[in-house]
Amino acid sequence: MPHERTITCERCGRERHFVPFLHDHFGAPVRASAAPEILPHLPITRGAGAALHQQVYDGLRRAILDGLLRPGQRVPSTRSLAAELGMSRLPVLTAYEQLLHEGYLEGRVGSGTFVTASLPDDALRPRRGSQPAAAPSPRPKPRVRPEPFGGGLRPFRISAPALDHFPHAVWSRLVARHAYGLTPSHMMYGDPAGLESLRAAVAQHLRTARAVRCEAEQVLIVSGSQAALRLCATVLLSRGDRVAMEEPGYPGARAALGTEGVELVPVPVDDEGLDVGALNALGARVRAAYITPSHQYALGVSMSAARRLALLEWAERRGAWLLEDDYDSEYRYVSRPLGALQGMSAHGRVIYIGTFSKVLFPAIRVGYVVVPPSLWDAFMKARDAMDVFSPTLYQLVLADFLTEGHFARHLRRMRMIYLRRRDALLSGLARHCEGLLTVHNADAGLHVTTTLAPGVDDVQVIERMAARSLTAIALSSCYLGPARQPGLLLGFGGSDERRLEAATRTLGEVLRELTR
Amino acid sequence: MPHERTITCERCGRERHFVPFLHDHFGAPVRASAAPEILPHLPITRGAGAALHQQVYDGLRRAILDGLLRPGQRVPSTRSLAAELGMSRLPVLTAYEQLLHEGYLEGRVGSGTFVTASLPDDALRPRRGSQPAAAPSPRPKPRVRPEPFGGGLRPFRISAPALDHFPHAVWSRLVARHAYGLTPSHMMYGDPAGLESLRAAVAQHLRTARAVRCEAEQVLIVSGSQAALRLCATVLLSRGDRVAMEEPGYPGARAALGTEGVELVPVPVDDEGLDVGALNALGARVRAAYITPSHQYALGVSMSAARRLALLEWAERRGAWLLEDDYDSEYRYVSRPLGALQGMSAHGRVIYIGTFSKVLFPAIRVGYVVVPPSLWDAFMKARDAMDVFSPTLYQLVLADFLTEGHFARHLRRMRMIYLRRRDALLSGLARHCEGLLTVHNADAGLHVTTTLAPGVDDVQVIERMAARSLTAIALSSCYLGPARQPGLLLGFGGSDERRLEAATRTLGEVLRELTR
Repeated sequence: MPHERTITCERCGRERHFVPFLHDHFGAPVRASAAPEILPHLPITRGAGAALHQQVYDGLRRAILDGLLRPGQRVPSTRSLAAELGMSRLPVLTAYEQLLHEGYLEGRVGSGTFVTASLPDDALRPRRGSQPAAAPSPRPKPRVRPEPFGGGLRPFRISAPALDHFPHAVWSRLVARHAYGLTPSHMMYGDPAGLESLRAAVAQHLRTARAVRCEAEQVLIVSGSQAALRLCATVLLSRGDRVAMEEPGYPGARAALGTEGVELVPVPVDDEGLDVGALNALGARVRAAYITPSHQYALGVSMSAARRLALLEWAERRGAWLLEDDYDSEYRYVSRPLGALQGMSAHGRVIYIGTFSKVLFPAIRVGYVVVPPSLWDAFMKARDAMDVFSPTLYQLVLADFLTEGHFARHLRRMRMIYLRRRDALLSGLARHCEGLLTVHNADAGLHVTTTLAPGVDDVQVIERMAARSLTAIALSSCYLGPARQPGLLLGFGGSDERRLEAATRTLGEVLRELTR
Repeated sequence: MPHERTITCERCGRERHFVPFLHDHFGAPVRASAAPEILPHLPITRGAGAALHQQVYDGLRRAILDGLLRPGQRVPSTRSLAAELGMSRLPVLTAYEQLLHEGYLEGRVGSGTFVTASLPDDALRPRRGSQPAAAPSPRPKPRVRPEPFGGGLRPFRISAPALDHFPHAVWSRLVARHAYGLTPSHMMYGDPAGLESLRAAVAQHLRTARAVRCEAEQVLIVSGSQAALRLCATVLLSRGDRVAMEEPGYPGARAALGTEGVELVPVPVDDEGLDVGALNALGARVRAAYITPSHQYALGVSMSAARRLALLEWAERRGAWLLEDDYDSEYRYVSRPLGALQGMSAHGRVIYIGTFSKVLFPAIRVGYVVVPPSLWDAFMKARDAMDVFSPTLYQLVLADFLTEGHFARHLRRMRMIYLRRRDALLSGLARHCEGLLTVHNADAGLHVTTTLAPGVDDVQVIERMAARSLTAIALSSCYLGPARQPGLLLGFGGSDERRLEAATRTLGEVLRELTR
């Protein structure tokens, strides 16, 4: 019952579940929208000209007319309001009576006093001028939902994990355990670096599974990889700096790193990853390079060992920073992955970034940065200035999830599930989209990169897909400069084999319509 | 039992609680530090020169010598590792036998294979040169914990709520309810603006309790007031802009707003709040002013109505933005508070900022911004680029906490508790610190502002207090320019009356020592 709620009866203290708008045990309708007992702000001046009851009346009436109190909203009892205002009940009662009489308020038997639900709209306009006239609060235009939020759980949604296989029982048991056991020190301000136990568990995982060279003292817990990139921008980039970006590449990184006065420079990606030759040719003022060596966003390639060594050599020679976003590194279906670039670095020029969004679930909002010791103090200062620290509850839960072995088990189980989903997507594409698109790379991660015939408008394809309840990322939207190739990034993590098969059939229809 | 944990036996699947380092039902010690089953990263090349068992041996040995696998850490079973590497078990068994024989690994009856706990330290150093030499990962120097995190739960800690009166039962019940009922769509990427139900509840609360003029569509949920200020800086400030700051004022705002190329300009605060005359005299290029009109941080005064009108007039005339941090507005002990400055504004020049850190608890990391409609799209874009969205779980919990009336009840109850604590602090100061400090303002919020005799070094006072397990904020640290007056900001929210009485006695002793 998704709409069921628990409420406490304010009179008898009984708790009960109810479905909104059904009658409860008071015999009166319970309104889910009526927040009980918010005390309204009323400007009362003692010893001023107007009598107290007049001031209460004026204040409430103005609040209703100005839309601060809305039709149907509950107002406090006369007793509560009198106590709050530090006056006797009489002036409050007098004011309420007047407002009831004039129809601004209405009483409902047994359930209190409310702003009249049927107040005519033309009454709800500022009328009085003793305070500066309030601008009618204009309703903002309907929001356009931005890309990372769009798509929801539709087939081909990128970065969607297999939430249907998430270990809900273990996870929610851990959450409940820590919620009930939350101590005052875990409710207070936490260490901007993160919870010690979580930092240690992340360090051990990264050393072991990703060959990252790190101590717990270098691990900074943040609110995801986007926040990590934003921190890197704050600490490392100044006006006039240039940052090398993979082309095509991850649009989120452009948003985080492209701060005022910083120039983003596209560097082409080929089948071995970032073209380090082109990077070398860029000349001076390149302060950092952003790379996704494990699973290049968007093309899906893994950076070769030779390129990695050349990239490290470039960074050392130029004194530049490498921002390694170890995106989608956990899942690889073909050959053994290379370890992290960070672990190959002899000179601490790599800042390693990871997140739990895709291996657990996006709404957890926990990621991490492995910070070279020389930059630690600057990162801490910037983190403190940005958002101080991450919520403690999920840090406690995650620390247990890692140290108790649930995380490693989860990763291993998911690898098999994603392999099956990837295979289902590939066979669906072979069956339904033959000749319409080409699979460019499907070796790793949670999406398959495909290319379309030159001249096909991939943004138009996405629009047509949306009309059929599908989503995807247009390869052309991943270019900083002019797009060189149309294509689709098709996520397979969030949909089971049956849905993927059906979705590829629809995709084939869409593509055939457009190329006819 | 704070150290109790739950683990699942990998062999029989049984779950049990255990206290670390006690023997479990295997009959062998269970090590809380041994994360089971993280699969180590091993670079294996098929068809390369070396035999597979030699590559597994080399890979594990290197991982141990390089510190990627640590003494005492568990390694996976030969079966798991063989499956992970996609090879038969034989080469893995051969490699493990060799490593056991050479003392790199050790087996423990019934509990698996571990990196030898007693491995001599001098073995743990990179020895081999086939990859680029790894720099020995230098241990970062011990971290200096920054101010907002310091102080913990000590008496006089500023911004500490009365966690001992927090409605734990209701809160943890809500958390558990939503943890067990978490739906896939609430696990996915959420709206950068925040959860709709929470935005509506916050809007209703702000309209009613603070006379803020807003619709739910203007409410942006963020990770606290620090993140809110950071967003304001991103959206509103450019290189060369000047920002007027209250002097003395909130150091956290300086950290958030003082980005590269932005000049922070101190404007004095007197008993009516910010000196708008001085603001008017500043001249051009002042793009924004940061103010805490309800309870000025640090002096505790409330901005007078005349000053508010003058400030609004200034903003309109200059086309400047007012960043209203409605800090500590919920608790006022003397007279009725003025409503929010935002609600008096006719021209949408006010950005209203609030947080649940002090009214609920800091580790919740949820705050909000009421954004003028004209700025909405820019704020959304900046929020998405900064950290995408806030964790969904606490948003769900908060929405229920507000709409079910728990929040309003909590605020009302806390007001009485804080009034008692404030009175205890004031009477303690009168008893033990007479003639040593002067109470400047104690009308609102969770701290009392006191001043010390000119010439007293308040930072030294804080140091002496720290040695006696007390904490506080030095008034001199709140000045952007030269400090004009020494003083102490004494928090009273987090300590009960008895602790406050004892703490004022200690404070009196410290002050007497220093002025002797």
